[in-house]
Amino acid sequence: MDLFTAIRERRSCRDFLNEPVEDEIIEKIIEAGVWAPSPLNSQPWEFIVITNNEVKENIYTESEACKKWAIEKSGWKWLEKYQIDFLKSAPVLIAVIGDSRKSGMDQFQEDGPVAYQHACAAALQNMHLAAHALGYGTLWFTLFDKPTMRKILELENEKTPLAVICLGKPFKPPQQTARKDIVKKVKYIR
Amino acid sequence: MDLFTAIRERRSCRDFLNEPVEDEIIEKIIEAGVWAPSPLNSQPWEFIVITNNEVKENIYTESEACKKWAIEKSGWKWLEKYQIDFLKSAPVLIAVIGDSRKSGMDQFQEDGPVAYQHACAAALQNMHLAAHALGYGTLWFTLFDKPTMRKILELENEKTPLAVICLGKPFKPPQQTARKDIVKKVKYIR
Repeated sequence: MDLFTAIRERRSCRDFLNEPVEDEIIEKIIEAGVWAPSPLNSQPWEFIVITNNEVKENIYTESEACKKWAIEKSGWKWLEKYQIDFLKSAPVLIAVIGDSRKSGMDQFQEDGPVAYQHACAAALQNMHLAAHALGYGTLWFTLFDKPTMRKILELENEKTPLAVICLGKPFKPPQQTARKDIVKKVKYIR
Repeated sequence: MDLFTAIRERRSCRDFLNEPVEDEIIEKIIEAGVWAPSPLNSQPWEFIVITNNEVKENIYTESEACKKWAIEKSGWKWLEKYQIDFLKSAPVLIAVIGDSRKSGMDQFQEDGPVAYQHACAAALQNMHLAAHALGYGTLWFTLFDKPTMRKILELENEKTPLAVICLGKPFKPPQQTARKDIVKKVKYIR
């Protein structure tokens, strides 16, 4: 698939067919992820591919709890209607983990290590694009508490669970969403 | 260009030809950026396109100072040899700015707003891929002090200068770098 088509057409998918995803496809998607750039080519990413129903259920339960907490904290009433059953119905979840010890010069700066997270986000974007080009739908899911997710996935404290990609064949073609005119987003200093 | 080719072939470029980049190309690259996903479709990115030599010189001077600071702080001797003249020789610099007020639920969590940065990193990755597909070279540059960069670019405190993309025609074809075997990066929970 043409790069620009993939970038334009990729959309978040929350409705998946109950069809397993072949390992070969999962590997192609992860392979696309690892070609992202990273600080000092540190490749700070790790991937946990979850098809185990019990672990998916645990992630769902934690995310439901996090949703409740988030509604209270934010006052965002609309969040109550946001169903997250896709965590169970997506045939595959891929947790994308960043290693905070593999950051760049930023680790010495005021905000602490964060470039490793940016690199993982670039890898995530590659993965979403790759999945779309292969005919799969994905969702970049982050509605969870990091320390709890660390426990579920048995991660050391230095490792940050950044996102869970929900992956599967989409139930229907993705719907387009709008983007602001770039004129509003760009300034020129000539 | 095929998506997977773009992902595989894109490399960091530090050596640019002294040729201006047409506005149309710059717009195509930014347009690719804004199709990245973001928390609640908040589109937290802004772009400052810099071709003005004085501002490029200011960014170079600040980055040189930051490099000196970083060498002292990190003890990384190799950094002394790292020339950053590309900040002046790249015909275009695009500063990618994130608005911390446009994050998701993460803004209520312990680490504070960070998802807007991940969205900007996804946009950055789209931009690197797009530039490569259009025959241009890019570098994801971050060796600067954020408060100083804020001053140079006249940004409010809520806005984070995340990276400067150096953009131009590459002096020579990009060199491949290696990636770790994904077997070392992936764990399956079946």
